[in-house]
Amino acid sequence: MKRVLLLGEALIDFLSDDYSESLSQVQSFIRHAGGSPANITANLLNLGEEAILITRIGDDPFGDYLRETFKERGIDTTYVQVDREKNTSMVFVAKSKGNPKFLPFRSADYCIEKPTDMARLLKKTHFFHISAWSISHHPSRKTVFSIMDDIEGTNTKLCFDPNFRRILWEKDEDPMQTIKEVLKNTYLCKPSDDDAFHIFGRMHNEEYIEAFHQLGVQNVILTMGKDGALVSDGKRIQHQKTVSQVVVDTTGAGDGFWSGVYCGLLNHQDIFTAAKWGSAVAAFRLRTIGSDLPLPSMEVIKSEFLM
Amino acid sequence: MKRVLLLGEALIDFLSDDYSESLSQVQSFIRHAGGSPANITANLLNLGEEAILITRIGDDPFGDYLRETFKERGIDTTYVQVDREKNTSMVFVAKSKGNPKFLPFRSADYCIEKPTDMARLLKKTHFFHISAWSISHHPSRKTVFSIMDDIEGTNTKLCFDPNFRRILWEKDEDPMQTIKEVLKNTYLCKPSDDDAFHIFGRMHNEEYIEAFHQLGVQNVILTMGKDGALVSDGKRIQHQKTVSQVVVDTTGAGDGFWSGVYCGLLNHQDIFTAAKWGSAVAAFRLRTIGSDLPLPSMEVIKSEFLM
Repeated sequence: MKRVLLLGEALIDFLSDDYSESLSQVQSFIRHAGGSPANITANLLNLGEEAILITRIGDDPFGDYLRETFKERGIDTTYVQVDREKNTSMVFVAKSKGNPKFLPFRSADYCIEKPTDMARLLKKTHFFHISAWSISHHPSRKTVFSIMDDIEGTNTKLCFDPNFRRILWEKDEDPMQTIKEVLKNTYLCKPSDDDAFHIFGRMHNEEYIEAFHQLGVQNVILTMGKDGALVSDGKRIQHQKTVSQVVVDTTGAGDGFWSGVYCGLLNHQDIFTAAKWGSAVAAFRLRTIGSDLPLPSMEVIKSEFLM
Repeated sequence: MKRVLLLGEALIDFLSDDYSESLSQVQSFIRHAGGSPANITANLLNLGEEAILITRIGDDPFGDYLRETFKERGIDTTYVQVDREKNTSMVFVAKSKGNPKFLPFRSADYCIEKPTDMARLLKKTHFFHISAWSISHHPSRKTVFSIMDDIEGTNTKLCFDPNFRRILWEKDEDPMQTIKEVLKNTYLCKPSDDDAFHIFGRMHNEEYIEAFHQLGVQNVILTMGKDGALVSDGKRIQHQKTVSQVVVDTTGAGDGFWSGVYCGLLNHQDIFTAAKWGSAVAAFRLRTIGSDLPLPSMEVIKSEFLM
């Protein structure tokens, strides 16, 4: 069976109890297991695909909670590294009707080390997924670049979630230097229009697609919320309408999209059809509160949203 | 007017909504402005004394909240340093009927720098108060030791809150080396029996008093919860019963005790009477939920608890 290998942040999301435009006003926070690569891993397992997560947590109560959550979700914890010095990473989020304000406290998540049995791990790996978080700091960045070297010239394809935010990087560093290095080796990149804005500044959506291709990305899916998605394989751009009708909670929709896309690609669909599968899983997430509820099978999701 | 100068942690306390024996089980946290030196400063201002706080917060929403809280409590923010790199320190606490579990995430608080106008600041300073947190890490430790040099041979007396917990120090360091260096210059030390246990291990309470004196402390007040306090000036030990009758919430009682003691000393009471004033302020705090409610005047508190 082919698998997706995911490397990146697992962390505690502290989500404000109430809507607020500023984190300095929030009085009460609810704890959630978060981190996009961890969520996509759980999703893929729900969808019946093989997925392995490489991440790093702290040797503390929040790390204990994450590991328990992984087990409940069926995630293999073999590659969940425990850092003896660093704490589990956290993000505080103020729920908002607009763009939610977030404040990261990163620690263990950017210290991911390369597993010793990488060659064996990569053998069955079809897609190697990384988030922008994993390349924002060493030593995790070094780990990613080393694995990028490993997969060069093999059948394993690099997929990059460009969920870039300047605040995650050192103040005196130029993030674009690193991001460009990754993009030129990227098989698939799935930015939201907001991600693309944070990377390239204000441009037309088609120009974002072009910008990613020019930097070497083979396939680009630009998600645009209620305006659907632009899907491009470098030869043609297809505009796909959203299949979502009801939006209750946007949390986890992007991770759902990734999961559906991988499910499509692993099942021999082209990038255009895979994007539709992604849109369907996102629509499923949008309809319910809670990004950590188990997903039904892809067949069920497709029958609801793609028929 | 004589003043107390306090140096140490200001931080966000995330207190569990419900009682729990493990932080890994807590789902909801309420934010509070915390940090013992900050609380004692606010208490002293309530009691009509002059107090100045030297602390350090992050340039983030939690730091903004702390600064706003300081202003509301009348604390002069001149010496509230803002770190551009480090985040505001945080502590997660699981409320417990026994010993509450706590998990610190320290950052800005141990980076306190020496104010440039230290000589001017010290001129009117009668007591220089530090917490164990401030000496657990450089650069804050270096700052404390430099100020200890400044006050040597002057009328400014060093008061040390030995709220020592091993988890606050680097794993490969011997905390006792630093603590001993501080204790030998200490005019007043106010350990709880729990603090003393964490420093010296299991001993009889009178032996704790002796141990502090042997290391150079001039006056020791050992608080023992419902068993009252042992007060020693090095010549005699007095056992003082608690004046507290109703215990609703223990949060802030220790800080209240310190505040009453300082109020007594600044008003020319000896250490035994000052300890009684401390016990009275602690009793006031124990009677109500919330350690950040304004205190009434010392006269009012004394009339309620010491008559």
